[in-house]
Amino acid sequence: MSVPYLMNDPKGYIPASQRIPVLARPFVSERAKKTLDIVERFVEEECIPADAVFAQQIKEAGEAHSSNIVGRFESHPSVIEDLKKRAKELGLWNMFLPKNHFKEGAGFSNLEYGLMAEYLGKSGTASNMEVFAKYGTQAQKDKWLKPLLNGEIRSAFLMTEPQVASSDATNIEMSMHKEGNEWVLNGQKWWSSGAGDKRCKIYIVMAKSDPTNTNKHKQQSVILVPADTPGVTIHRMLSVMGFDDAPHGHGHISFDNVRVPESNMILGAGRGFEVVQGRLGPGRIHHAMRSIGSAEKALEWFLARINDPAKKPFGEQLSKHGIQLERVARSRIEIDSARLAVLNAAAKIDEGDAKAALKEIAEVKVQVPSMLMDVLDRAIQAYGGAGVSQDTPLAHQWASGRTMRIVDGPDEVHILQIGRNENKRGDTLRKRIVAQQEKTKELYKKYGLKYEDPLQLNRVNGGKSKL
Amino acid sequence: MSVPYLMNDPKGYIPASQRIPVLARPFVSERAKKTLDIVERFVEEECIPADAVFAQQIKEAGEAHSSNIVGRFESHPSVIEDLKKRAKELGLWNMFLPKNHFKEGAGFSNLEYGLMAEYLGKSGTASNMEVFAKYGTQAQKDKWLKPLLNGEIRSAFLMTEPQVASSDATNIEMSMHKEGNEWVLNGQKWWSSGAGDKRCKIYIVMAKSDPTNTNKHKQQSVILVPADTPGVTIHRMLSVMGFDDAPHGHGHISFDNVRVPESNMILGAGRGFEVVQGRLGPGRIHHAMRSIGSAEKALEWFLARINDPAKKPFGEQLSKHGIQLERVARSRIEIDSARLAVLNAAAKIDEGDAKAALKEIAEVKVQVPSMLMDVLDRAIQAYGGAGVSQDTPLAHQWASGRTMRIVDGPDEVHILQIGRNENKRGDTLRKRIVAQQEKTKELYKKYGLKYEDPLQLNRVNGGKSKL
Amino acid sequence: MSVPYLMNDPKGYIPASQRIPVLARPFVSERAKKTLDIVERFVEEECIPADAVFAQQIKEAGEAHSSNIVGRFESHPSVIEDLKKRAKELGLWNMFLPKNHFKEGAGFSNLEYGLMAEYLGKSGTASNMEVFAKYGTQAQKDKWLKPLLNGEIRSAFLMTEPQVASSDATNIEMSMHKEGNEWVLNGQKWWSSGAGDKRCKIYIVMAKSDPTNTNKHKQQSVILVPADTPGVTIHRMLSVMGFDDAPHGHGHISFDNVRVPESNMILGAGRGFEVVQGRLGPGRIHHAMRSIGSAEKALEWFLARINDPAKKPFGEQLSKHGIQLERVARSRIEIDSARLAVLNAAAKIDEGDAKAALKEIAEVKVQVPSMLMDVLDRAIQAYGGAGVSQDTPLAHQWASGRTMRIVDGPDEVHILQIGRNENKRGDTLRKRIVAQQEKTKELYKKYGLKYEDPLQLNRVNGGKSKL
Amino acid sequence: MSVPYLMNDPKGYIPASQRIPVLARPFVSERAKKTLDIVERFVEEECIPADAVFAQQIKEAGEAHSSNIVGRFESHPSVIEDLKKRAKELGLWNMFLPKNHFKEGAGFSNLEYGLMAEYLGKSGTASNMEVFAKYGTQAQKDKWLKPLLNGEIRSAFLMTEPQVASSDATNIEMSMHKEGNEWVLNGQKWWSSGAGDKRCKIYIVMAKSDPTNTNKHKQQSVILVPADTPGVTIHRMLSVMGFDDAPHGHGHISFDNVRVPESNMILGAGRGFEVVQGRLGPGRIHHAMRSIGSAEKALEWFLARINDPAKKPFGEQLSKHGIQLERVARSRIEIDSARLAVLNAAAKIDEGDAKAALKEIAEVKVQVPSMLMDVLDRAIQAYGGAGVSQDTPLAHQWASGRTMRIVDGPDEVHILQIGRNENKRGDTLRKRIVAQQEKTKELYKKYGLKYEDPLQLNRVNGGKSKL
Repeated sequence: MSVPYLMNDPKGYIPASQRIPVLARPFVSERAKKTLDIVERFVEEECIPADAVFAQQIKEAGEAHSSNIVGRFESHPSVIEDLKKRAKELGLWNMFLPKNHFKEGAGFSNLEYGLMAEYLGKSGTASNMEVFAKYGTQAQKDKWLKPLLNGEIRSAFLMTEPQVASSDATNIEMSMHKEGNEWVLNGQKWWSSGAGDKRCKIYIVMAKSDPTNTNKHKQQSVILVPADTPGVTIHRMLSVMGFDDAPHGHGHISFDNVRVPESNMILGAGRGFEVVQGRLGPGRIHHAMRSIGSAEKALEWFLARINDPAKKPFGEQLSKHGIQLERVARSRIEIDSARLAVLNAAAKIDEGDAKAALKEIAEVKVQVPSMLMDVLDRAIQAYGGAGVSQDTPLAHQWASGRTMRIVDGPDEVHILQIGRNENKRGDTLRKRIVAQQEKTKELYKKYGLKYEDPLQLNRVNGGKSKL
Repeated sequence: MSVPYLMNDPKGYIPASQRIPVLARPFVSERAKKTLDIVERFVEEECIPADAVFAQQIKEAGEAHSSNIVGRFESHPSVIEDLKKRAKELGLWNMFLPKNHFKEGAGFSNLEYGLMAEYLGKSGTASNMEVFAKYGTQAQKDKWLKPLLNGEIRSAFLMTEPQVASSDATNIEMSMHKEGNEWVLNGQKWWSSGAGDKRCKIYIVMAKSDPTNTNKHKQQSVILVPADTPGVTIHRMLSVMGFDDAPHGHGHISFDNVRVPESNMILGAGRGFEVVQGRLGPGRIHHAMRSIGSAEKALEWFLARINDPAKKPFGEQLSKHGIQLERVARSRIEIDSARLAVLNAAAKIDEGDAKAALKEIAEVKVQVPSMLMDVLDRAIQAYGGAGVSQDTPLAHQWASGRTMRIVDGPDEVHILQIGRNENKRGDTLRKRIVAQQEKTKELYKKYGLKYEDPLQLNRVNGGKSKL
Repeated sequence: MSVPYLMNDPKGYIPASQRIPVLARPFVSERAKKTLDIVERFVEEECIPADAVFAQQIKEAGEAHSSNIVGRFESHPSVIEDLKKRAKELGLWNMFLPKNHFKEGAGFSNLEYGLMAEYLGKSGTASNMEVFAKYGTQAQKDKWLKPLLNGEIRSAFLMTEPQVASSDATNIEMSMHKEGNEWVLNGQKWWSSGAGDKRCKIYIVMAKSDPTNTNKHKQQSVILVPADTPGVTIHRMLSVMGFDDAPHGHGHISFDNVRVPESNMILGAGRGFEVVQGRLGPGRIHHAMRSIGSAEKALEWFLARINDPAKKPFGEQLSKHGIQLERVARSRIEIDSARLAVLNAAAKIDEGDAKAALKEIAEVKVQVPSMLMDVLDRAIQAYGGAGVSQDTPLAHQWASGRTMRIVDGPDEVHILQIGRNENKRGDTLRKRIVAQQEKTKELYKKYGLKYEDPLQLNRVNGGKSKL
Repeated sequence: MSVPYLMNDPKGYIPASQRIPVLARPFVSERAKKTLDIVERFVEEECIPADAVFAQQIKEAGEAHSSNIVGRFESHPSVIEDLKKRAKELGLWNMFLPKNHFKEGAGFSNLEYGLMAEYLGKSGTASNMEVFAKYGTQAQKDKWLKPLLNGEIRSAFLMTEPQVASSDATNIEMSMHKEGNEWVLNGQKWWSSGAGDKRCKIYIVMAKSDPTNTNKHKQQSVILVPADTPGVTIHRMLSVMGFDDAPHGHGHISFDNVRVPESNMILGAGRGFEVVQGRLGPGRIHHAMRSIGSAEKALEWFLARINDPAKKPFGEQLSKHGIQLERVARSRIEIDSARLAVLNAAAKIDEGDAKAALKEIAEVKVQVPSMLMDVLDRAIQAYGGAGVSQDTPLAHQWASGRTMRIVDGPDEVHILQIGRNENKRGDTLRKRIVAQQEKTKELYKKYGLKYEDPLQLNRVNGGKSKL
């Protein structure tokens, strides 16, 4: 009876490993292919059916508690624990730590894990474990990474602040100063994702340790703050388009003279930017591939809808309507080319590191969420009322997807970065075109042609009129 | 002094072979990389400066002749002959015949030639030689393919007809019937590209040989018609957005009892669709990669413009304007992901054949020209009046690029094909979602949850209300 | 201290009546202008500040009740009752019943009320009272319209059904049959907006009374069903992108042998389409103008954000970023032209009736919600995390606005209707162009010119080749 | 036999005066309505059939001359002279000078003439006569305006310069200095539209007379330069997407010590900006309404095509294809709302002057050409090859329409102007929202609610955290 969950083709089930784009195949090991197929089966057969169960367990926990909000956030949906156990049994655990940088992971490359993340994006969650694995001291790893890798506790990364434009991280205001061998933190953070969960025991916090440093990228540090440290207050949970995302949640947290030992510092004072950069590169690839998965899921639901025999506006099933078929086709095209872009960025990271792939990562950071929004919007529209309601996964996918255009820097930041980076070639190209035009003039002479534009030579050279 | 033509990076010249996307690298041989770099140099250093010379030679030939039109179309711009000679010297000749299907070619794969075609797209022309090489008899090859490969004559492919929707080739009306051992053709064709050139000696013509065959894809044949056969009349040349594309040209041609021997048949009567499909697959990849090259060139001119020190609206160089930088960034993103899609389609053809890559080819057929239009439009807009005039290559690139959304089937044909093909999965996916929902119901029971939607079960199953 | 709420211009307060587009001015009475200014003040000074209060009262009612859901939907936010009283004092009550069709209303035209609705769209709610006022018998009016007009009870219009494509209302399945002098209803409805409110006492229900009538538009009737009739069950409340819209709510309701007297019939059996059409025309104008108001509010918040002195990514306030200014400008352009389109449609209804304005109404039904989505998306993006959260009104505006592309027929239905209607002119225009081309041929002769296209005459006439 | 040219509705001919949007009707006199209907008949019955004749006369003139270029530009297509005569007979002459500013015109308002310009946009040309009529001295009017109004001579407005960003007119470099009672001009201009015509006898030239004036808008003057003044050289004609627009043409002209008497100054030295502004306001409205007409024509051709019985891809006429109907519908919506925007801007000018309508004019300057491009692109695509060729008017319409996004300032200039203007309200709106939030806080207290966001007060006020 497992077949129907996996059917994806009129001819039956074609495993994920056989649907890898041709260009990406040389980059995928046999072991990764096997794991990929296990991931796909696990997601389609066990995770997706459990999604509504998860939502309902939280809802009922809220209704059962005297405070709905407390009930929702204190809930421990048992279906998740069961799935975790199952994932461990299947060997699907901590696959995301790329093999060329981490010994703690499952030994897959970013590209290989990316392929798996696409399927996880049809259900999943995220993680800050890269930070510990990449930059943690042995003591930090022992204390926090182990229980994290075991799924016993959770962590939250606290960077965004409500009162400044923290998309430009040089703007953050939370302060930390040294008193004795302790650091003292003051300020506030929001969009602390995961902070709602009672098992979220450790915060990774960015703050300004050296606010007057003339190098704006050396003013920040990243430090570990246990969630139960005195002075830490979770004020409220933020909602995303009406969803509270309980029990995970997005916290708004203040720090009032919060003291932590200096051994909690990650990598060293003033090296906050380094930590953030190292975390964001692969993380963005994982986000992007999950978004690809979310888009594929939206397209699947879209296709299911237009083939519903009960839905026949104007006497014809929706799959006969050209408007719908055009939207299906554009979705197919956009998803496929976005996936290749993400896999290419992943391969670039695997080849070198996140820094070498800055351009490629920024490109998919902009391209993918925007594509996802378009595909989701078409699917929602095909479902009408059901599309915006709790009866399809689309509304929640949309809300989560929408934040992808904001988190880790809004689109505009990356667009400007890409634009400015590309523009560095501008002057060089201008000179090349001028040189080509000079050669054209020589050829005109050689071939005895009339040059009609005596005033306008070297227009891209900024040449003034020489009359 | 050759350096400036090649500069493409603030640090100097980075050869094309080092800029191949990571994903594509395993598919490119060392020999192809070397040739690719030669192609790039040849295009940037010799072809691009000659483009304006070519245009001016035609213009002056028109002015020198008593009939401007005749003069333009009879011109043999000597700069082209010189470039051909140079290309042959450099070993750049007939590179486009893919190695796994042809012995006549230069031995490159579709992907490898695709990379080169990107550069050729900054100047280039196309070809029908695949048809001869792939489907021609030895006699046909001897008579026509040799002089074609030597560049002595040219050919035109005549498929489109003005009076029907020939985007769906089953609609073509030109007839051919057998009389003795001759085929007799009647009808008309237009958009016969290349027919303007006096050296265009041979037409490859699609016509209906068996109009009543119940299989609509067996009614057509493809046959060779020498241009000077009695009954063939070129009525006029069509323009593209005001450009006549002389001397190449786009002809409108009628056939009035045109007789050719039956040995001129390609592949066999009734096999016209096969011939067309075999020609179009790789051809579309080449078109698409040339379009990528055209887009890169447009972006280069765009960047050159916004760095022109003489252009400072509102006191600031255009490269400081956020509106322009956003357009640069979006162009960068769109080109890069389109290129990966084309290379993936090329690799898919190389792996199997054009038929196996139908989906991928159709996708890039839609994606790439539309992307090219967007990038060109932004560049044109940045140049203002110069952008639409003869002073930049952009206007002509736009006109040629616009036809790419039409030739070999307009976008809509491919969109519907992709949509319908994708829709084949619809019923399967619907069943999968239903199965997942059934499992959800079981899990609700297992976890003791309340199912809130008794009326709405299996909504995508078309289930009626059971009240 | 009332000034700041109204400031809308650097020079201070310019009342709404002075900002009416020039084209619309001849259509607005002095009395309507005065009321418009009162509406604006009331909305900006009293309603908008109360919006968050309303949300918080519902939230706290949910937390205070043992069931959060019941608590939310049973809440009677006192702030709303206070605002109602205030509105009555100001004479702002039941303004929406257009003067040329109703005596119960405040005597304004659709265009005049439309101008007011724009401001109400910055806070408001909707109504089904048109149906009673327009089609109700005196007995029906006495029983239901009076308490509705007094705001003592509420109503819900039940048309949409989950299991069919009810966007095409000929598809609805809920049945009604006569037994004695009673009608018996069976079936289910959803998206019964307003049904969550405990004061919602009366449903206006569309069902099939004559399912075999050969005229598909005569099979339906609209009938009144008191909410407490036996057999009526509210199963659950639907959410919109995560918002439950309590206490108003969107119900999913089943009817199991629900009996109502025949005097509850509206207008007469088989006349359901007439009722729906009469309701939808003006209703769509009101929706559209409220959406214009929502878009203006989004733009106001957008402008407020980019002028926040604390938000300076890359060292420059957002209002200096060209990307943001472009989005502001495009929003301004799109809102202004959409408003004119709605006012023109309103004037067309005022001049004749909703039927005469079918084209104009359908156009704004498509144009306005899509415009609203674009403006909201830009504003949300400028706010980053705050934009999707409960800290701005934008997320909830987006969710509500998104449903406007679905309710009263999804975009696609109206697009096809407009397209088909416009297409009725197609054959006529084709003939006109042919006639013009025939005249061109005569002129060619008259002026002694060469006609180059002998084969292609009357191309749009479908003429075949005449060779 | 005149009927078919006018048919525009399945029911026959509905005159233009009966199709005026409801909102605009109060602004149109009976006399204007009558003229409007005459204009429509004249355009549909006489001008449109003559369009191809005009093109062919120029083409044949080119072929008949030893130099094609000279032949084309020296041609005087007799069909135009015949149409002029006919227009004068019908009383259709110089209708564009608005009644509230000019006594020389036909006495119509900008809105009234705008309605006529829509029809003229299906064939027409433009004019600089406003400048003479509005700012000319009596002597200037006697000498130039009279023969212009009689159609005996033509004029060209010379503002754009190739070597600077002259979209910002403060950047222009052409100089003029006083020597005795003469002004001496030096520099170059391009895009001098109309300068190709041999009857173009007078240039209206903008140059810098006071380049060091601290007020950047007082440095320029506008002066009359007869085309045959020594030192004036027309170097070449610019093409637009391959069209040379002969004999009108777009000239590239240099000025080498060109001397004109000081009586040729318009309005006074240093008042060039005033002249330009006064010309551009109504001129932009006329351009915009002609573009509306061009879009309507494109839609008409689009509709004609999809109803061509000979065009049936996939066995169904194009008018049955949902993709095409969606494009028709979107075109209809976009044209209708753009027209209202232009008419509203015209009414605003009529009410006050161009300065009072700056916002509205800038909005339509951006909105209309972009809408026109979209509508044309859809029509071109439906025609396939015919759409880009000389066989439909669409390609030339596209080329001309594309320049509308550039002339009189490119889109970006107007977008920034609108954005900055709108942004002036930003700080005011921010304060208003803060005041509304303060009131919300008071209401929270009044209603006994919990304020959850102690840290985040006055977020749009730029308030810092107060912890």
